[in-house]
Amino acid sequence: MRALHFDGGAVRVVDLPEPTPLPEDALVRVHLAGVCRTDLEIARGYLGFRGVLGHEFVGEVAEGPAEWLGRRVVGEISFACRRCETCLRGLARHCPARTVMGIEGADGAFAELVRVPVANLHAVPDALADEAAVFCEPLAAAFEILEQVEVVPGARAIVLGDGRLGLLVAQVLAGAGARVLAVGRHPAKLSLLRARGIETARLEEWSRERAPLVVDATGSARGFELAVAATLPRGTLVLKSTVAERPALDLAPVVIHEISVVGSRCGPFPPALRALERGSIDVRPLVSDRLPLARGAEAFERAARPGTLKILLEP
Amino acid sequence: MRALHFDGGAVRVVDLPEPTPLPEDALVRVHLAGVCRTDLEIARGYLGFRGVLGHEFVGEVAEGPAEWLGRRVVGEISFACRRCETCLRGLARHCPARTVMGIEGADGAFAELVRVPVANLHAVPDALADEAAVFCEPLAAAFEILEQVEVVPGARAIVLGDGRLGLLVAQVLAGAGARVLAVGRHPAKLSLLRARGIETARLEEWSRERAPLVVDATGSARGFELAVAATLPRGTLVLKSTVAERPALDLAPVVIHEISVVGSRCGPFPPALRALERGSIDVRPLVSDRLPLARGAEAFERAARPGTLKILLEP
Repeated sequence: MRALHFDGGAVRVVDLPEPTPLPEDALVRVHLAGVCRTDLEIARGYLGFRGVLGHEFVGEVAEGPAEWLGRRVVGEISFACRRCETCLRGLARHCPARTVMGIEGADGAFAELVRVPVANLHAVPDALADEAAVFCEPLAAAFEILEQVEVVPGARAIVLGDGRLGLLVAQVLAGAGARVLAVGRHPAKLSLLRARGIETARLEEWSRERAPLVVDATGSARGFELAVAATLPRGTLVLKSTVAERPALDLAPVVIHEISVVGSRCGPFPPALRALERGSIDVRPLVSDRLPLARGAEAFERAARPGTLKILLEP
Repeated sequence: MRALHFDGGAVRVVDLPEPTPLPEDALVRVHLAGVCRTDLEIARGYLGFRGVLGHEFVGEVAEGPAEWLGRRVVGEISFACRRCETCLRGLARHCPARTVMGIEGADGAFAELVRVPVANLHAVPDALADEAAVFCEPLAAAFEILEQVEVVPGARAIVLGDGRLGLLVAQVLAGAGARVLAVGRHPAKLSLLRARGIETARLEEWSRERAPLVVDATGSARGFELAVAATLPRGTLVLKSTVAERPALDLAPVVIHEISVVGSRCGPFPPALRALERGSIDVRPLVSDRLPLARGAEAFERAARPGTLKILLEP
């Protein structure tokens, strides 16, 4: 089968044998897959992953238990043991023995077929188009914030970064009742939020007001200190950016202002699927382009350009 | 009056005019004052402070309202406006207009007399010796942790750093029911905790087990990454260290393991005074030496040496 593979040097379309499912797995024929900043960071060396990239996907079950065969699905990306203490505490996404699709120890979804444990599958409602369902994984990462911190209705929340994840986070927080201010560099991206009634500011004209809740979704090493400076004393900074660098950081303001920095990664699929089905989060304007998998390397270049939103790949 | 002054270059004993109290202030004649790591960092350039150093003290009111005159007191170090939104939210220690004794904009307690707002004073119970009461400020900083995070009785808590603050934090967490493991470099300091029934490990022999609650009280730039590695997924890392450097830091593990990093600074005096009065926290073995204020520069050198615990100054 055709797949987009990273060998530590370059991202290339290659021909690979079809994956071999274990008894608890399904094989999913990928309809659409999304390129995420984490994919770009991995292609720069982050986490040392080698294999088929990609972890945002929608597809249909080609092999697996009878009740799943032929169903349209999305899938959670952490493959957990489901037996250890961490899993039994309900933190399967943190299972120490986990592999992670396209990120750590498991091939990803930029391929014709991807192996996914059945326990990770979620059925996609018929009314939900592939182009929306493919956003389930990043939208779940935005909903993760609601699992971790209290969002006070009416209170100010500042979202730094108008990239793919930032635009989803701003909508999720606004949906939870926060008075969101989204700060970014790209007027065209910010206008998508204004169309949804969300206040925005370009970074260079932002008043630097501070808020009790700040989300760093800049995906940049510089974002952290900007986010710390935007957080009120005793406030919460949700850290969504993972970067390959080790920037020089001043943590003293975190101590002096007693800020809580909450690392936030993957999230729950069910609320994300519901929000997509209800249309309360509008992801269609977030698609910049669809490319065939054969043009995968070009898709990575496009996704890395400032101003690009989501690039989708069609295997 | 005699005072220990930092002019940006050196720490020196100088002769200064007595401080002039404002109507809301008291003048406190200092009996004893403690040298803290923050003082050492300030003398290395941290925060750019110039003036009389010192913020841990016990003394007696020499000038002020009649009901306070002659009383033995300790004092909170943040001088707040008590009128702004932050103060009215109950966060006077974070007042944006605050000055901080010996740290920012207000002269400190390494002097014969120190100016303190009456609102910051706490009376010292008669049964409590000066040598114990002088630990109220750092002990309050340890109690601050209980105001910020949930300490689950019986759950493991790892305290990194066996310095002055680390030893207090370990005792406070043990008092709150945590199963504390204190990790440090100095067998003699760790033995003080073992005498109180607290488990300890030398850094080089520590098993690197992880815990749901970790406190970085190393006071060192390297402590942060050590503390992150010791925190279980979805766990809490309380950050007590403030350092003048900007170390290169990898924040990706904070995101991947969804760790909450909680900055923690000054704390509430009343529980600290009660613990000292009840003897539930034993601070007497923490005193390494008492020196007259005239030997203040020497006191700073001594306090900076590995293995030294608290150096007290007598004005």
